[in-house]
Amino acid sequence: MAQKQPLIIKDKTQMRNWSRSMRSQSKLIAFVPTMGYLHQGHLSLITEAHKHANVVAVSIYVNPGQFSPNEDLSTYPSDFEGDVQKLLSVPGGVDVVFNPKDLYDYGESKGGEGGGGGDGVVSCVEKSGLGHESWIRVEKLEKGLCGRSRPVFFRGVATVVAKLFNIVEPDVAVFGKKDYQQWRVIQRMVRDLDFSIKVIGCEITRENDGLAMSSRNVHLSCEEREKALSINKSLTRAKSAAEDGQVQCEKLRNLVIQCIADAGGRIDYAEIVDQQSLEKVELIKSPVVFCVAAFFGKVRLIDNMEINL
Amino acid sequence: MAQKQPLIIKDKTQMRNWSRSMRSQSKLIAFVPTMGYLHQGHLSLITEAHKHANVVAVSIYVNPGQFSPNEDLSTYPSDFEGDVQKLLSVPGGVDVVFNPKDLYDYGESKGGEGGGGGDGVVSCVEKSGLGHESWIRVEKLEKGLCGRSRPVFFRGVATVVAKLFNIVEPDVAVFGKKDYQQWRVIQRMVRDLDFSIKVIGCEITRENDGLAMSSRNVHLSCEEREKALSINKSLTRAKSAAEDGQVQCEKLRNLVIQCIADAGGRIDYAEIVDQQSLEKVELIKSPVVFCVAAFFGKVRLIDNMEINL
Repeated sequence: MAQKQPLIIKDKTQMRNWSRSMRSQSKLIAFVPTMGYLHQGHLSLITEAHKHANVVAVSIYVNPGQFSPNEDLSTYPSDFEGDVQKLLSVPGGVDVVFNPKDLYDYGESKGGEGGGGGDGVVSCVEKSGLGHESWIRVEKLEKGLCGRSRPVFFRGVATVVAKLFNIVEPDVAVFGKKDYQQWRVIQRMVRDLDFSIKVIGCEITRENDGLAMSSRNVHLSCEEREKALSINKSLTRAKSAAEDGQVQCEKLRNLVIQCIADAGGRIDYAEIVDQQSLEKVELIKSPVVFCVAAFFGKVRLIDNMEINL
Repeated sequence: MAQKQPLIIKDKTQMRNWSRSMRSQSKLIAFVPTMGYLHQGHLSLITEAHKHANVVAVSIYVNPGQFSPNEDLSTYPSDFEGDVQKLLSVPGGVDVVFNPKDLYDYGESKGGEGGGGGDGVVSCVEKSGLGHESWIRVEKLEKGLCGRSRPVFFRGVATVVAKLFNIVEPDVAVFGKKDYQQWRVIQRMVRDLDFSIKVIGCEITRENDGLAMSSRNVHLSCEEREKALSINKSLTRAKSAAEDGQVQCEKLRNLVIQCIADAGGRIDYAEIVDQQSLEKVELIKSPVVFCVAAFFGKVRLIDNMEINL
């Protein structure tokens, strides 16, 4: 198959003009937002995107708005040239790579650092003066799970995704279910703010040994990586136990917490929640998802498993 | 001039389809969001809208999301048939009236009342369960002036305007500068969230005696209405004083506060702020706006005057 070289666009207006030109030709546009350092998981989203649209745009942008100043923005891995090569390998390729420089630079004096959110949350783009100050909060879904230890995270994700939606103007957007809470937050935002976009969630892509693919995996030592397999192993065991009749979440949670701790991981959370509301469940009576975040060394990994009894 | 009967659209999808059909014919779309009970001020926005676009859509929707439960949602005046008649009187008319029933009904079970915002703010659409929970906060601009006494107001305004923007998909949107803070909040939101929409602010329309037009004026008794003239009179005097060299805001504020109090009004706020940041100013050195909110009886009125020295 001939490789399709993507158009690389850095400018917002050029990006929107491309999309409007596609729409005027009655082409459906699918969009896959990423922070780059692409792996097979991202590529599976692009494959999915092709099923729903005539053209596919991928964004590569590490969003400072979703990192708090004490998080790993500065060490977040990147490899733009490598990413473009990987995109060439996907059947059908991609039509556009949107790679903006700074989505929070509005060409006005920003003043110094400072300012910030009403309830004390601060991200890496907080400025005083006339800097960025509009944020989307999905007020219930953003609170639990990753929201507890990362208070600016979903505010930053929802906001940058809204910005990208307004620039790319897609018909369809594809997200990975590995970031389960993110997927639900975006779905809810799209419904509540009446974006005319179909949001699609894709199943988790795993390495052969079961580790969920993540750009952060590159930071794991060999030993840590081995230990990290405990997440998927224990989730799989918990799911089997549930399918065999163990519907008490306390028991299932203990199984996973114990297994990860035994492997040397440090649990951030291990929660069984309703698939839609992400509210905690005590007894499994309807579709749930078992969500886990754990540190191995300094690397924080997340994974999850849906349980549909 | 033949009167143009507007198309009346209640359904979101039908509204968006109309806009997309216009765009596909290369027509520029202007949008004037209103809560109905139209007066000459609204009609001046429509006249302005015609200068910037080929077609004009007006929404009439009383947004529960910007009212807190103790505010005047239930008594907000409405007269849909009268509004449509008034729209016929504007030169050029309007092409569409978008009059949705409930922009927060997503056809899912909402559960009972409850739930609500992260920092304790609650509007008339707060629900538990799977109800609306995505809100846009323009975190600095929303805080002062009207934001102090109406904590859910700008969250609700920004959110419903974003919803309407995503449904109507206009090229231009027109707001009145009578709601000065609202206009700045929307401008900032449009910039920060990358809406591809030009926001235009229109000068305040006043009655012959100087009272700023407002749908709420209908609730004023004759006597209250007479007293309310003190707002515009005192703002005009303060502006003159500033132009004559009085640049100390404390002095100018006292002039206005005294005049309104003498007339029997109850001041909510009287602030001189920067036109862009809406931050308080002590000495007038750059363009400012003098913003006032005051009660006459139970009716809360707002007005403002730009001072460009």
